[in-house]
Amino acid sequence: MSKSMIIKALLVASVAFSGLVNAAGDEKVRWRLAETWGPNFPIFGDAPKNMAKLVKELSNGRFTIRIDSANKHKSAFGIFDFVKNGQYQMGHSASYYWKGKDFNTMFFTTVPFGMTTSEQYAWFYHGGGMELMKSVYDKYGIMSFPGGNTGNQMGGWFRKEINSVEDLQGLKMRIPGFAGEVLAKLGAKPTNIPSGELYTALERNTIDALEWVGPSLDLRMGFHKIAPYYYTGWHEPATELQFMVNQKAYDKLPEDLQKILVAAMKLAAYDMYTQSTHESGKNLATIRKDFPNVKMRTFPKPVMDAIKVANSELLAEFASKDPKTQEILDSIKSYQEQARAWTDFSDRAYLDSFSAK
Amino acid sequence: MSKSMIIKALLVASVAFSGLVNAAGDEKVRWRLAETWGPNFPIFGDAPKNMAKLVKELSNGRFTIRIDSANKHKSAFGIFDFVKNGQYQMGHSASYYWKGKDFNTMFFTTVPFGMTTSEQYAWFYHGGGMELMKSVYDKYGIMSFPGGNTGNQMGGWFRKEINSVEDLQGLKMRIPGFAGEVLAKLGAKPTNIPSGELYTALERNTIDALEWVGPSLDLRMGFHKIAPYYYTGWHEPATELQFMVNQKAYDKLPEDLQKILVAAMKLAAYDMYTQSTHESGKNLATIRKDFPNVKMRTFPKPVMDAIKVANSELLAEFASKDPKTQEILDSIKSYQEQARAWTDFSDRAYLDSFSAK
Repeated sequence: MSKSMIIKALLVASVAFSGLVNAAGDEKVRWRLAETWGPNFPIFGDAPKNMAKLVKELSNGRFTIRIDSANKHKSAFGIFDFVKNGQYQMGHSASYYWKGKDFNTMFFTTVPFGMTTSEQYAWFYHGGGMELMKSVYDKYGIMSFPGGNTGNQMGGWFRKEINSVEDLQGLKMRIPGFAGEVLAKLGAKPTNIPSGELYTALERNTIDALEWVGPSLDLRMGFHKIAPYYYTGWHEPATELQFMVNQKAYDKLPEDLQKILVAAMKLAAYDMYTQSTHESGKNLATIRKDFPNVKMRTFPKPVMDAIKVANSELLAEFASKDPKTQEILDSIKSYQEQARAWTDFSDRAYLDSFSAK
Repeated sequence: MSKSMIIKALLVASVAFSGLVNAAGDEKVRWRLAETWGPNFPIFGDAPKNMAKLVKELSNGRFTIRIDSANKHKSAFGIFDFVKNGQYQMGHSASYYWKGKDFNTMFFTTVPFGMTTSEQYAWFYHGGGMELMKSVYDKYGIMSFPGGNTGNQMGGWFRKEINSVEDLQGLKMRIPGFAGEVLAKLGAKPTNIPSGELYTALERNTIDALEWVGPSLDLRMGFHKIAPYYYTGWHEPATELQFMVNQKAYDKLPEDLQKILVAAMKLAAYDMYTQSTHESGKNLATIRKDFPNVKMRTFPKPVMDAIKVANSELLAEFASKDPKTQEILDSIKSYQEQARAWTDFSDRAYLDSFSAK
């Protein structure tokens, strides 16, 4: 046997072994994720970062995911198409942004007067929510997963106090989507304005009020300096962001990397809710300490009742148009009733005991 | 070169490659976990099962954890020692069971009038809770992690209505630990009774009342048939179970298996809270539908106030005995104040809007 033959034999052995290594799943997988957010956007942007870090660590470096922020891919609201077309294997965004693509995607983020965060996670994982979301997204070749919860979002910042339904008449408010339609029914003038222009719009009276997120992200925007009435929330009681995965790319992953990806997304989503809770408490304390001019308010009962009626009418209109919408809204309604009875008997009764009369 | 030399060369190559495989962490790791619970105990027992399933899946079968229930290891409250001594690499239990070993372990499960579940997770992961827990457990060579939350636990099942502080006088109640000491200060006679004997004790008037968990686990015990007053909770607002890991065993794991273990514990813990929320809602609905004799109540304000005062006195006594206790209780108190202001402004204001006057 010649030297060259020996080398050949060793090469064959080497390829055989690297084949074995491959069979054990040791090939490197490199994916890209497009997010709606700009680079270093706090909390929202931390969820995909934490997910990608977990995927890399749990796979011992075999699976890495590069994150492209909106400044890179130039299309904050193009994430759905990126993932559908496979330009990106993954996305991080929010399901209600795809209302224009498919109306039924709207209900997997949050619903006005809907579930709280813990109720909604129970619905997703034990109440049929994940299955309904799959039934909406399957036809696009997209897998959709919870992507992190903000907790209850605030009703917004107002220059003037809202004392009656009449005060909503003609009110120019930045409040996009579903909630905007509800307020429009009561005479308000809802608009949508990009986040970078919000402060100026408020300062120059282009708008009278706006909603953003909550203390966790509002403080850095400076709204408290010019619109001192800060109202409690009704329209986004448990905003859940979204991970999207291209189904074909997922199907090609070895089974253990599939499991790692799904676990990392689920854990990063739960962790974002914990982070939101922390940041909200911390920033609310800062607002109270450093900006005593801020007046925290809840809408008076007649205002809240009018908003609730308008919301119910709108939901009924939606449901009447499409059996799938009806199915989703029925599921949310009946699950919320069951879960809310428990929330009221447990956490709410407990919280009320600290200020019972 | 002879045939045997070629075979030898191939063997060397083979060992080199299998060595690489090992360096990549492909050796099998088999651990055992001892749990406080009996076999197939719902929810509590699901948390370690889900954790072990995740560890196996995420490691592609390289890391498996066998679970021994209390009927196997015969020592429901021996878990701390099992893990400390390395008889088991892991345990699943609750930190407050180790009060007799180290008083300061008691505060990492829940505290009467303490944080809600979302507040407490924020404290663990962002408010210094994990670091404080580590400072208590390090000296035993045990790593302690959140192990799943039950949510708010109920005040208990009572044969008679509690209308005043006087009604607590001489009340024989199964309520172990901290909360029992609080009620004893108000004249009650707290006892502890094994779970298997609770129903009979209540039926034969050995006790007048008892607390167990909440609808998620109470329904199967049958208490509603003989003690129809079901009271909202105060003493365990967010009971967090516990995973324990032997530090030396952990240190010997390859780094990726360490990461997999920690992620699996964290995810299984969060998931148990979601499962508890679901099961509580479902079983509360069953109680309301099938057992209309059950009367759901909240303790009147004078009773709650008296319990609160007794609790504060007891906490102050504890804190005065040990600087570490003081440090832990100070951390809980200040974090709870900050987080609760947010809970009140967000979820509580939202929940109240459904029944505002």
